[in-house]
Amino acid sequence: MAQTVAFIGIGIMGRRMAKNVLKAGHSLRVYNRTVAKTEELCGLGATVAASPRQAAQGADAVITMVADPPALAAVLDGPEGAFVGCRRGAFVIDMSTVDPETSRAMAARAQARGLRYLEAPVTGGVGAAEQGSLLIMAGGTMEDFQAAKPLLETMGKKVLRVGQMGSGAAMKLTTNMVASSISAAMAEALVFAAKAGLEPSLVVEILADRSPLIARWAPRVLAGEFSPFFPLRLAHKDVHLALATARGLGVPLFALAAVAQLQTAALAKGLGDLDQTATIQVLEEIVGLPVRQPKP
Amino acid sequence: MAQTVAFIGIGIMGRRMAKNVLKAGHSLRVYNRTVAKTEELCGLGATVAASPRQAAQGADAVITMVADPPALAAVLDGPEGAFVGCRRGAFVIDMSTVDPETSRAMAARAQARGLRYLEAPVTGGVGAAEQGSLLIMAGGTMEDFQAAKPLLETMGKKVLRVGQMGSGAAMKLTTNMVASSISAAMAEALVFAAKAGLEPSLVVEILADRSPLIARWAPRVLAGEFSPFFPLRLAHKDVHLALATARGLGVPLFALAAVAQLQTAALAKGLGDLDQTATIQVLEEIVGLPVRQPKP
Amino acid sequence: MAQTVAFIGIGIMGRRMAKNVLKAGHSLRVYNRTVAKTEELCGLGATVAASPRQAAQGADAVITMVADPPALAAVLDGPEGAFVGCRRGAFVIDMSTVDPETSRAMAARAQARGLRYLEAPVTGGVGAAEQGSLLIMAGGTMEDFQAAKPLLETMGKKVLRVGQMGSGAAMKLTTNMVASSISAAMAEALVFAAKAGLEPSLVVEILADRSPLIARWAPRVLAGEFSPFFPLRLAHKDVHLALATARGLGVPLFALAAVAQLQTAALAKGLGDLDQTATIQVLEEIVGLPVRQPKP
Amino acid sequence: MAQTVAFIGIGIMGRRMAKNVLKAGHSLRVYNRTVAKTEELCGLGATVAASPRQAAQGADAVITMVADPPALAAVLDGPEGAFVGCRRGAFVIDMSTVDPETSRAMAARAQARGLRYLEAPVTGGVGAAEQGSLLIMAGGTMEDFQAAKPLLETMGKKVLRVGQMGSGAAMKLTTNMVASSISAAMAEALVFAAKAGLEPSLVVEILADRSPLIARWAPRVLAGEFSPFFPLRLAHKDVHLALATARGLGVPLFALAAVAQLQTAALAKGLGDLDQTATIQVLEEIVGLPVRQPKP
Repeated sequence: MAQTVAFIGIGIMGRRMAKNVLKAGHSLRVYNRTVAKTEELCGLGATVAASPRQAAQGADAVITMVADPPALAAVLDGPEGAFVGCRRGAFVIDMSTVDPETSRAMAARAQARGLRYLEAPVTGGVGAAEQGSLLIMAGGTMEDFQAAKPLLETMGKKVLRVGQMGSGAAMKLTTNMVASSISAAMAEALVFAAKAGLEPSLVVEILADRSPLIARWAPRVLAGEFSPFFPLRLAHKDVHLALATARGLGVPLFALAAVAQLQTAALAKGLGDLDQTATIQVLEEIVGLPVRQPKP
Repeated sequence: MAQTVAFIGIGIMGRRMAKNVLKAGHSLRVYNRTVAKTEELCGLGATVAASPRQAAQGADAVITMVADPPALAAVLDGPEGAFVGCRRGAFVIDMSTVDPETSRAMAARAQARGLRYLEAPVTGGVGAAEQGSLLIMAGGTMEDFQAAKPLLETMGKKVLRVGQMGSGAAMKLTTNMVASSISAAMAEALVFAAKAGLEPSLVVEILADRSPLIARWAPRVLAGEFSPFFPLRLAHKDVHLALATARGLGVPLFALAAVAQLQTAALAKGLGDLDQTATIQVLEEIVGLPVRQPKP
Repeated sequence: MAQTVAFIGIGIMGRRMAKNVLKAGHSLRVYNRTVAKTEELCGLGATVAASPRQAAQGADAVITMVADPPALAAVLDGPEGAFVGCRRGAFVIDMSTVDPETSRAMAARAQARGLRYLEAPVTGGVGAAEQGSLLIMAGGTMEDFQAAKPLLETMGKKVLRVGQMGSGAAMKLTTNMVASSISAAMAEALVFAAKAGLEPSLVVEILADRSPLIARWAPRVLAGEFSPFFPLRLAHKDVHLALATARGLGVPLFALAAVAQLQTAALAKGLGDLDQTATIQVLEEIVGLPVRQPKP
Repeated sequence: MAQTVAFIGIGIMGRRMAKNVLKAGHSLRVYNRTVAKTEELCGLGATVAASPRQAAQGADAVITMVADPPALAAVLDGPEGAFVGCRRGAFVIDMSTVDPETSRAMAARAQARGLRYLEAPVTGGVGAAEQGSLLIMAGGTMEDFQAAKPLLETMGKKVLRVGQMGSGAAMKLTTNMVASSISAAMAEALVFAAKAGLEPSLVVEILADRSPLIARWAPRVLAGEFSPFFPLRLAHKDVHLALATARGLGVPLFALAAVAQLQTAALAKGLGDLDQTATIQVLEEIVGLPVRQPKP
């Protein structure tokens, strides 16, 4: 059944996800801090709102896809946020990557206003967002999950309820901490191998068996190609959220803490908008040997 | 063409590899510190030697598969080592995991005695050793590699020359450092997820996409099954060799250094003979929550 | 000149600092979440307020000494916080350890209400708090610093202005990150030495030259004495604030990140209310050897 | 009673120590790989030997002060080493910083030849070496210690027996691991403080209370002065020996492992011959802000 959907956060991922909502026949309103990014969607029939509040007015569901907890708090709970615009009983579905505590706090605020709230972070990257084949890890009540599932299925091909509120965020942080760890392991391995004089293409061939992430990433790194699949800035934010959550849970993460510092070093070098694999450049500079071949 | 092969080091891997040499029709002499482990091979037609030296006498090729650089130095270059037993022109093929410096030093000692030397470490684990489908990463001259290839192919299905002497060791350390990093990343993720209250089987399902290693390991860890695919003691030894080699090359490995300390902690707890994934028990004890279900 | 001073946060440190304010002849009102802790001060002439707001009403200066940024935001800027109670022109002096961003945010909120704000975190521990000999590191305008200095001198013997708003917090985090690093270095050294079979008293004698902190801490650790000079919970909070601030500044802190994880492990073991040196118990348990002698 | 002493290893430390042996009235023979470094001592009456073996011939005591375990093995146990030159009953006193295992191995080799062996590593740096006021931490039997003490007292003002063979090395590694940890803590703190905009001289003033090492080092670092008190190359070697020894003892050293990687990064940048405090340059380059003022 066609719904009126407000989509807030039209970035690299959000733009593609919103397009799939639109294609499925829903009526779409969009809001983005930088209005220019909404143009393509408007060309496809979406309307632009001047604020999250305005976007939410009269919508059946509000979807958010923003950068981090403060951005989420602003677009939902700020003075011009979606919460004040929503009608009672409307759905708020946050698909951003935040921490469990933020999810639970936002859900409580929403429910206090008579709204329904679901967290539904995604994995799969830009390609899966484009093709509507994301993996979606929802947290919330079974009832809310069942009600929102058809809408989520316009964006993802595997839509799972992973548990109560906060579980979705925790699951997403779990997958991302492993991805960042593998990215760092690959970086350390490639630099080590380069200094040991190994043939890079052979190293990539052998390491590719270790992880499909390495199989996808390593050839790009060797080609000096760092256009963002997943920007370092966001990868670092997620690792930080994982560490902060782990701190609250009393879980020491010795290896991940080292990975986080490598990422901080890469951000300090101004690499935040490149792909997360650009962390390798920190090590390359220290050892004075690029593993990557510059683009001709 | 059938050869006389001396196989030194009849451990978990060596036993299976030697069997494949034997099956291929070669005449086999074996040496192991603990004689009992050679019984099965003798039942299949191998003869036992009292020392590496005796095993090497008259052999066309000597294959070594031992635990670490000191063990290799002892079986090759000790007073009762293979070097003193070999006839001039015989082949010494070390398939152990050692560091590049050790490989180069042993090769130099062998060549000074008129022997041919190839390093040929393997990857793939017990299953691949059994089936003769190991990946073999050889280092040495092209001529030596070509000459030894048929013998290596009795044990592996992919037999690569990865470069000059030392390259094989470096490549092997590169793949093992990534495996240990992924093992630690999995451990941190599973403990984090357990403390966050996530359903373990769901976590495993989602993390399995990150790496086939995790897909293989995580269900065993949850089942409390730590019989060794690859014993922690050896994994730790390899990480240590990688760190020592990296130190020599001037490559800082921040994340791997943290992984190494986790492994040291696991060894301190007496877990060295379990699978390398047993490292997770260090974190489980700190957080006071087993992610694994004890065997019923 | 005697002033009316509101003191908010009557903990281990606050109680002793407030007593010195009282002794100097100022009129004192106190607020603490747990009222019982204010009894001693009331016996000395202080009056108890039911809320930070009430304590602040009519006060010339409000001093806060609370656990962390959220606690500070609550007692200053909450609905019953000091800000709403203060008269225009009153002084708010935060002596807690927070991060520079929190200091700057609170100062801006205070100034928007016509209040004067100074951050003035302290170092020296319980003994110096008792004797009024703290080192006080103030951040704010020179004018505000000069105006508040006499009051601060009732609590400290060295009262420095270290720079603009935020500098006090940054300086305090700098000193505490070094203290936590030295605490971890001592823990690692004592456990290493114990496992190496060295005589503990000799180790302490030799390490005492490295730092007066070690000279003070090590004999207590060996005596199994962990009553808090500075509770681990707070030390960990400060290390976390330092890491978060460093992240914002783009400064990787590889060693401190490892220290933070050791502290998290100690908190997971329920040691948060013991002295920060209790972190050593994490290592002792891993190696299975207590360096400390249990109390007879 | 005047003795004939062979002193092997005339480096930054050895030269000064040997001079004090000479001043005390002993007859001195010196050996150094680079002969030029022995000239000053010859001017003072020492004679130069062409090999450790020759230096040892007829000597009552042989003192070694070399860079690391391989160097020690070479000068003592090599074909032209001191062991083959010594008369039975002569004393070998190793004052280098090595690991306990090396000390025990060399002692066993010496004793097998009828020699007496003492390990006696030192601390205090170049200044104390010059003034004969080193702290000397000897390991060996009480009888050997008592016999060698008068000779050691020509070089040190505090000459302690810290335990059986290996204890001296372990104690020395313990003190050096703490020094390297404090050096890294200082580096992280100074870079953090600089990025936070704090006045460097104030930071140094406040941190100086944390450790006399920081009091001595920090002003030099700010002045861009990295002439070696203790070269990074040796500090790194000692941290490595501590980590290797800890590995053998089953002691995880999470923080020290991170410190070691920072040092490796500094060595990779070619800073090995500068003072160990030069490690800070790794962080300075990452953050793009020198804390040190270049020399005018």
